[in-house]
Formats: sequence, structure tokens, C-alpha cells
Amino acid sequence: MPGWENNVRKVVPYTPGEQPKIRDLIKLNTNENPYPPSPHVLEALRAMDADALRRYPDPAAEALTEAIAEHCKVPVSCVFPGVGSDDVLAMSFLTFFASGREILFPDITYSFYDVWADLFRIPWEAQPLDENFEIRNRDYFKENGGVIFANPNAPTGVLKRLDSVREILEHNRNVVVIVDEAYIDFARTAEEAAVGSDTPADSALNLIGDYENLLVVRTLSKSRSLAGIRIGYAVGSEKLIRYLNDVKYSINSYTMNQAAITAGCAAFQDEAYFRRCTSGIIRTRERVKKELSALGFLFPDSAANFLFITHPKLNARDLFCSLRQAKILVRYFDRPRIDNYLRVTIGTDEQMDALIRFLRTVLN
Amino acid sequence: MPGWENNVRKVVPYTPGEQPKIRDLIKLNTNENPYPPSPHVLEALRAMDADALRRYPDPAAEALTEAIAEHCKVPVSCVFPGVGSDDVLAMSFLTFFASGREILFPDITYSFYDVWADLFRIPWEAQPLDENFEIRNRDYFKENGGVIFANPNAPTGVLKRLDSVREILEHNRNVVVIVDEAYIDFARTAEEAAVGSDTPADSALNLIGDYENLLVVRTLSKSRSLAGIRIGYAVGSEKLIRYLNDVKYSINSYTMNQAAITAGCAAFQDEAYFRRCTSGIIRTRERVKKELSALGFLFPDSAANFLFITHPKLNARDLFCSLRQAKILVRYFDRPRIDNYLRVTIGTDEQMDALIRFLRTVLN
Repeated sequence: MPGWENNVRKVVPYTPGEQPKIRDLIKLNTNENPYPPSPHVLEALRAMDADALRRYPDPAAEALTEAIAEHCKVPVSCVFPGVGSDDVLAMSFLTFFASGREILFPDITYSFYDVWADLFRIPWEAQPLDENFEIRNRDYFKENGGVIFANPNAPTGVLKRLDSVREILEHNRNVVVIVDEAYIDFARTAEEAAVGSDTPADSALNLIGDYENLLVVRTLSKSRSLAGIRIGYAVGSEKLIRYLNDVKYSINSYTMNQAAITAGCAAFQDEAYFRRCTSGIIRTRERVKKELSALGFLFPDSAANFLFITHPKLNARDLFCSLRQAKILVRYFDRPRIDNYLRVTIGTDEQMDALIRFLRTVLN
Repeated sequence: MPGWENNVRKVVPYTPGEQPKIRDLIKLNTNENPYPPSPHVLEALRAMDADALRRYPDPAAEALTEAIAEHCKVPVSCVFPGVGSDDVLAMSFLTFFASGREILFPDITYSFYDVWADLFRIPWEAQPLDENFEIRNRDYFKENGGVIFANPNAPTGVLKRLDSVREILEHNRNVVVIVDEAYIDFARTAEEAAVGSDTPADSALNLIGDYENLLVVRTLSKSRSLAGIRIGYAVGSEKLIRYLNDVKYSINSYTMNQAAITAGCAAFQDEAYFRRCTSGIIRTRERVKKELSALGFLFPDSAANFLFITHPKLNARDLFCSLRQAKILVRYFDRPRIDNYLRVTIGTDEQMDALIRFLRTVLN
């Protein structure tokens, strides 16, 4: 081995997720939205001029930050935009979890939390979910260097109610608490989504005014159908956002490209479409829950755009393979406690019908 | 101060570069290209469909990686694309400078090298350029944890010849050597640029086959007029690129959005435009050099799309302010050794004429 290789940071090699090139595949493996983004988005992208490409983008993404602030009904100074919620979350770990004490998060959750902790040399301790995949709040009452959890959680879809979120905050006034709300827009009934306010009742956004140390992170990848354009954001107290910006600008001023800023702004200009789209997915989800239950599947009651299903008579890994052969792609996690589950994204009604037809034949 | 603030990573607060909203401003402060990108780029962006937005982008940005590989005449496995060269460089620091020994770079150079080193806790030692702003190669012959330098250097524009680059590599076989070639496409004569090969004679790309530990980093922000779209890339041995990908995928799979991938591919499909554009800028640069010399300005002989100028009779900071009042924005660095210089981007011929007219009145 040449000498220079001794200086290389070694990580567990990782192969990026399968980008299937199979025709007519039903892709229910990455929690993408089955519906296109608002037509305003493509229009806005098509209206971009050459100058927008030639010049450096606005490092503060001011126009997008304003659109997010308006949607969330908070001041602009309480919003931090980034390249997908992954970028926002990683930057938040770097900024807020610098105490040297262990940060806490659930054992079953988004798989990047421990990765970013290790990357930034933040000690961490995973707290086991209970047998219903619920967070046991008391696990988060001990001394720690920060708390992060996803709500609804992934890959389970389980929603923590606002009172319970508040309880964790009450016991963690001296550390930053991050609530990762990638899926929160699906945490309502279809009727609420179609007509309701922009902030779901269980969103921690409702607590922002009460806790200076609370950071809520969201994404446009799921409910706004913009996974391909990479936009996420954090909402928190002015102080938290200032700290985030200080760190972000000191590392890399220009991370969001002009196309993302343009697309993001346009997405927020079409709230009617957003409501129609999310309420459609929620309606499909609730119907599919009933049909899967009738087939004997078990799953936590999901408040997200996916279901986390298991069946007493089926082996999840085998089912994953036979679904794949039938050109239906879902997600299988080969990890302790969840290795007999499949995560199934809510697609269109037609896609879900195809899935249910296939599952029915498997069970017969 | 609330307890949680003790856990926050504190950095020197940084205000992002001025985004001037003045009308008719001549913007020569950020080394943007004065010409629009190839028309193919806007066409390609306008042809994007909703599915490209809805779905996660290809994490490997395969299509773009292929276009870069073809342009650089290297295998696809030797190319690593990223969100601007800042992203590529930061990822390279993280991956290759993990020895615990000091990395070496010039005292006057791109201002983010020490920032990334500090971020990733990499020790570093700046090596003073000589009085002509040239790298003294012998400073880089001592034991170290890695070497990085920009060629042409910024903000000086000074080009290091290939033999001299090779000498540094010969003395650094056991560490990774990064050559930051953000401005290399301007390192030729206008005639060479108009007709010549894609790889300038002094590019370290010519040495890739000889040194497994050499990484060349480039950007589409300057010579391809795509600052707004954030694309950079690294070229190196298959082994280096594999290490980079391992680290990158372990942190964040989806960093380049679909618009960037699309725009970048299109940019590489129009080499005729690229040559016309870069040779035009080089022609303007050489003419401006003569005119500034005639006015008594001194500057290192720039091989980039900017000039680093000083004048024995003028105070650079004052000149910066009066230029700004005249709606001509250039760059001033308040730093030791260079605080009487201005960095002036090469704009269109008309913009440079306006600059020279103004300088002439100041000197009279």
C-alpha cells in the first residue's frame, strides 16, 4: 500500500441506492411523491435566463427563505434553507452538537443520524423504541448533548403527538432538540390536508415560540414532489438560525443552485396544488391500510407517505424479492428488530392496486 | 446565556459576499464569466420534465460524470463530480488529509483551504509565496500530511509551469497532492484556446497517469459560465476517486440536483462555444494588461480570468471605494501582503473599457 493511503479517511464502503432502469417498474422504495410537482415549478425553471446560470446564486437564497417563512408563518430570520434536509441536518449536527456529551436518538430511525455523529466526532447513544415502535420519553430525560428524532418517524411512520414532543422539550432545556419533520405534511386526515392550515396540529412548529432551543427540519422532497431538486429547511429561534448561518457561511457560501431556489419559490406559490396532492396521498394511504389489514398484514399506524408492513405468514426478505421480480420495488432493511418488515411508499391508486393484487396472489 | 448555547460550535461570523442590487453595475468582483453559458444549457434545462424533479437524482450523476470523463480524456472511474469545486475540495480534505500531520499550502491563496482544514481538525502550515507571488517549491519538500495549491493561483493569477508542478509531486509521493485548477482553462493564449486541445499544457491533468496520489480539481463556474448552477469535479487515479466516493456516499447520497446534472451535461456538448468564449476572455485580458501597464499599474502576469493589480501612486482600498461609487465593483482583500492590491475580473470589452476610462481619470 503506497504511503498516501495511510492518510485516507476509511469508511465502510457504501453503494448508492439502486437506480432501476427497468421499464414499467412500480417504484415504491424511496418515498418519492407519485404526483408531479406543481406546474408552476416547471414554468419557473423554463423562465430562468442565462444570467441566472452565469452568476453565483444568492448565498442566502433570500427569495426562497421568504417563501418558506411565509408558509411557516415565522419571520425570515427564523428560517435556514439547504440542499435537502440531509444538508440541513448535517449542518445542524455540526453546529449544535459540539458539547462532547452523547446525543440521543431512537435505535430505529433515519439511518444518517449516527453517520453524521461519527463524521463530526459527536458521541451518541441510541435509545430503543418500545415494542410498538414508540419513543419512550423517559429515555430522553437523562443528561445528554442534544436530542434528535423524526416525527413521523422513519421507517415506521409512527407519529408522536404534540404533548409528547413538548414533554421531551421540557426535559431538555439545556441542549438543542431537533425534530426532523420530513413527513409531517402527511400527518393529518385527507380532509384536514385538503382544507386545513399549513401547520399540522402535531408539528413542533407550533412550539417554536416556546422553546429557543427547538429546531424543526423539513424537506420539499416528499410532499412537494421535489426530490430531484434538493431543498430542505430548518425553522427555529432567531438565535439558532444565526448560529447555523455562521457555520454554514464559514464552510461554503454557495450550496443551493439557482435552479433549486427558483423551483422552491414556485412550489410555495401553489398551495392549492400542494393540498390536493397531499390529501390524495393520505386518502390512498388510508384505503391501503384497510386492504392490507384485510390481508393479514400488520403495521404501525403510519402518518407518513409510506407503510411499514409485516405479515405473520411471510418472510419479508423473500417477499421483497418476489415483489422485485413482479417489477414492484419496495424497501427492505436488513437490521435488527426490523428485518421482517418492508417499507412501502404510497404511490398512485393504480400502483397500490397492483401491489395489493400481487400480495393477494402470494397469500393464496 | 442559556445552557444549550455552550454546546454550539462557535465560528467567526461571516457575512456572505455582497449581492449588489444596483442597476447598471459593472460586476468584476467574483470572477464570473461575462458571457452566458452555451445556449444548449438553457435548452436542456427547459426540456426537463416533471419526473426529473419528482424523483431523487442519480446519486452518481452518471451522465455528467461521463461527459466530464470524455472532456478530460480519462475513464469514468477517474472522475468525481460535486456541488461546485468548494464541495469537491472540502470532501477531498476530509478524505485525504487524515494523517494528523500538517498539510501545506501557500500563505496567499484561496481563502477556504484553512477553513476546511480547521473544520475537519487537520493541522496546516501556510508556506509564504516569494516576493513575485511564486510558490517556492523547496517549502513543500519537508514531511507533511498533504499538499494543496491552486494553479493558476488566486487571487494572484500566477501560473506554475508543468515541470514545476511535477517537481512538487516528485517530492510528495507519500501524501495526496491536490491541484486546484479552477482557472486553468484561461492558462493559454487566445489562439491556443480557440483551436487547441481541451487540456492546457500546464494542467496537472497531463500527469494523472504518472502519479496515483495526484488529484486535480476543476469547476464549471468560470470557463463554462455556470457559477449559478454549482458544478465542480475532481480527476485522479481510480483509487483516489473510489476513496472519495466512499466518503461522499457515507455522508450524503444526493447532493447534486437534477438541474445541475442536466446543465452540466449540456455544457460539455458545446465545445465550440466553450473555446470561443474562453479565447475571447483571454484576448480581452491580454489587451487590458497592456492598457493597465501603460497607466503604471503593476500585476503578476495572470493566466486566469482576473488581474491582481496595484499602483505605486494609489491606495488600493481608496481606489476600491471610488470604483464602487462609479458603479464598478472589484475585490479588495484586507490581508497582510496583499492589502494594496485589487482583484479585477475580466469582463466584456465594453466593461473593461469603462474600467480603464475611470482609472485614467483617477490618475489624471
